[in-house]
Amino acid sequence: MRQSKLFTKTRKEAPKDEVSKNAQLLIRAGYVHKEMAGVYTFLPLGLRVLNKVTNIIREEMDAIGGQEIFMPSLQSPELWKKTDRWNNEAVDVWFKAALQAGGEVGFGWTHEEDVTELMTQQVRSHKDLPCYVYQVQNKFRNEVRAKSGIMRTREFFMKDLYSFSRTQEEHDAFYEKCSDAYKRIFSRLGIGDKTYRTFASGGAFSKFSHEFQTVSDAGEDVIYVHEEKGIAFNEEIIDDVDLKEFGVSKDELDKEMAIEVGNIFSLGTKFSEPLGLVYTDEKGKKNAVIMGSYGIGPARSMGTIVEVLSDEKGIVWPRSVAPFAIHLVELSQGVEQVKAAADVLFQKLVEQGVEVLYDDRDLRAGEKFADSDLIGIPYRVVVSARTVEEGKYELVERKTGESRKVTENELFSL
Amino acid sequence: MRQSKLFTKTRKEAPKDEVSKNAQLLIRAGYVHKEMAGVYTFLPLGLRVLNKVTNIIREEMDAIGGQEIFMPSLQSPELWKKTDRWNNEAVDVWFKAALQAGGEVGFGWTHEEDVTELMTQQVRSHKDLPCYVYQVQNKFRNEVRAKSGIMRTREFFMKDLYSFSRTQEEHDAFYEKCSDAYKRIFSRLGIGDKTYRTFASGGAFSKFSHEFQTVSDAGEDVIYVHEEKGIAFNEEIIDDVDLKEFGVSKDELDKEMAIEVGNIFSLGTKFSEPLGLVYTDEKGKKNAVIMGSYGIGPARSMGTIVEVLSDEKGIVWPRSVAPFAIHLVELSQGVEQVKAAADVLFQKLVEQGVEVLYDDRDLRAGEKFADSDLIGIPYRVVVSARTVEEGKYELVERKTGESRKVTENELFSL
Repeated sequence: MRQSKLFTKTRKEAPKDEVSKNAQLLIRAGYVHKEMAGVYTFLPLGLRVLNKVTNIIREEMDAIGGQEIFMPSLQSPELWKKTDRWNNEAVDVWFKAALQAGGEVGFGWTHEEDVTELMTQQVRSHKDLPCYVYQVQNKFRNEVRAKSGIMRTREFFMKDLYSFSRTQEEHDAFYEKCSDAYKRIFSRLGIGDKTYRTFASGGAFSKFSHEFQTVSDAGEDVIYVHEEKGIAFNEEIIDDVDLKEFGVSKDELDKEMAIEVGNIFSLGTKFSEPLGLVYTDEKGKKNAVIMGSYGIGPARSMGTIVEVLSDEKGIVWPRSVAPFAIHLVELSQGVEQVKAAADVLFQKLVEQGVEVLYDDRDLRAGEKFADSDLIGIPYRVVVSARTVEEGKYELVERKTGESRKVTENELFSL
Repeated sequence: MRQSKLFTKTRKEAPKDEVSKNAQLLIRAGYVHKEMAGVYTFLPLGLRVLNKVTNIIREEMDAIGGQEIFMPSLQSPELWKKTDRWNNEAVDVWFKAALQAGGEVGFGWTHEEDVTELMTQQVRSHKDLPCYVYQVQNKFRNEVRAKSGIMRTREFFMKDLYSFSRTQEEHDAFYEKCSDAYKRIFSRLGIGDKTYRTFASGGAFSKFSHEFQTVSDAGEDVIYVHEEKGIAFNEEIIDDVDLKEFGVSKDELDKEMAIEVGNIFSLGTKFSEPLGLVYTDEKGKKNAVIMGSYGIGPARSMGTIVEVLSDEKGIVWPRSVAPFAIHLVELSQGVEQVKAAADVLFQKLVEQGVEVLYDDRDLRAGEKFADSDLIGIPYRVVVSARTVEEGKYELVERKTGESRKVTENELFSL
């Protein structure tokens, strides 16, 4: 895409009320636009990144047998009263509105009730199980405070998968399979080495749940990390855990701030019992289905990548989620021949299927480089009078700042 | 995908309170699940169709220079008060909720205000224009009645594009370009021959707006069609139009019920003036930007396809939006060799990149065929003892019912 056509502009300053680093950088670089506290628009560059994050999550969920659906935001009070989660004392993040046709609706902040009721129409026999259903869907949370940029918003996308199993063993096996998929996801997102499977409080049906926590000063959680073993414990449970069970002692653990980028939870029959989700087993006996829920926030993950990987010049995207692979910058300074050479290279890259943002704007080199560093595309390719003369291009890696001369063919295989 | 693994089931009956044909068929075939009146979940098959419809719309919007963004549902009262569209007397479809942090929020039913305010931060000079911004985003309408299945829902996806132009001529040219793109979209969706560009009431800035209306008894609108000229007039304006201008007389027009699948609207400076969206022209003078809005409902289009193209046996998808290209049905009736042959063919089709739903369920032929007709995939391929013996497959076209024998290679290029 030609940057001269991109309707967004970079900005020198973020809004004064924006305190989080991720939102400051994303706003300045033109990825997101702040509507109000905790509410953002995704601009073309931002939507490209968000879609790439989401597609990585989708691929991994499909690979473990997930079937994608899309459930509505609007939720019926009758449904949520069955599990005692409608009233504001039990759940303090509801948005609720009056329905003109009479009554009230809520705006979904999670979907356990909804998906359980849906499955009562699909599951009859043990032959219908196990099954795994997920969605990438916009949720609403009526947060009192929202100050972490795109990491804690009042409206957000969530990938939520729900598992439906016949036995505890079947559930446990999938739980570990999904945990492994989560590790692959965070690794592909470029934050795998900073993200720990973290023991957190469980519920009536399991001693622990697990969070995936990425170490960062911007985090809202405190965790205790055992780096070598690659595990961590949420502060909320650290005093209740027998650390010996895990072969560690508290003084081996590092206390860190961390961002919760995902969580997995054994639900047992907490939802299937009150909502009547049962299956008939081989002996004709009816049993409540055993459930689990598995969440990842794509926008929160995107914000975490910015928090963890950016530097003083701007954002540093991993190749896997970068809006473009190459930032092609022409420094023609009015020389037609250089401009033409850059145009030709842009065209060739597009034809080769390389995702390229082409800075064809009539600006000084310093401004272009500053914007390029801020936007954070992995590779910058410069076309100038000198590179045209040499027949090679200057390639700069955003992450390391390392620069080298490359041929056209090397660019196609970047 | 193996149908035995698909978690949704077909149903003999739709819910009793579901009066619309589109929802009855889509529910029975397992495409959607009804949550409450006017609120549906898209199940795996339904989401596949919806995504295909949406991607056709995206391709055509990108082709005319549209840049995709994603704006939030949550809307600030302050913004909408500037255009006098916050109060319930002016707009009777708002969902509104109290914000825990204080104040109120609305849930977007359209985004003119929001996108105009966004553009005030991006547009300065005439060099920044024209530009075209669109999204595919979930909207909310607090409808008093919802009885048209997925065609009029309280929560729905909308593709809304907004154009920003310097002059009326520049606006008019894009308006026609977008109208042409809409014609291509409805043609690709398989409803082009029943869809008319329809003159409808304009506003302060144009005599007419245009709707794209698909002739169907399930429609909520009345239009007057001139089939030969390929134009139509909405009943709401028929008596105010000088039909001579269009070279037609009223007795040449057929009165029809129709579904509004799209609309395009010249907004002039209705939003740019109150919200301060101006640009500086070549002479240094500030002018209000001239806007247009262009909507298509992907789910409504999907419902319209079902209304218009289905038959007494079920849904008939056009190839372009069908969830799968081929419905592979094995009639092994316990013969291992036939089952194995079907498995091999399924694997080969998948490897060739053909989208195939494989009915590998242990059911009678009659049940499988009835389900296949209901689901409406364009081509059905049967593998039975007879076809294995002959070394050819039986191919049935869903639309015509025509059957012929084909080789494996013919299937790959369907």
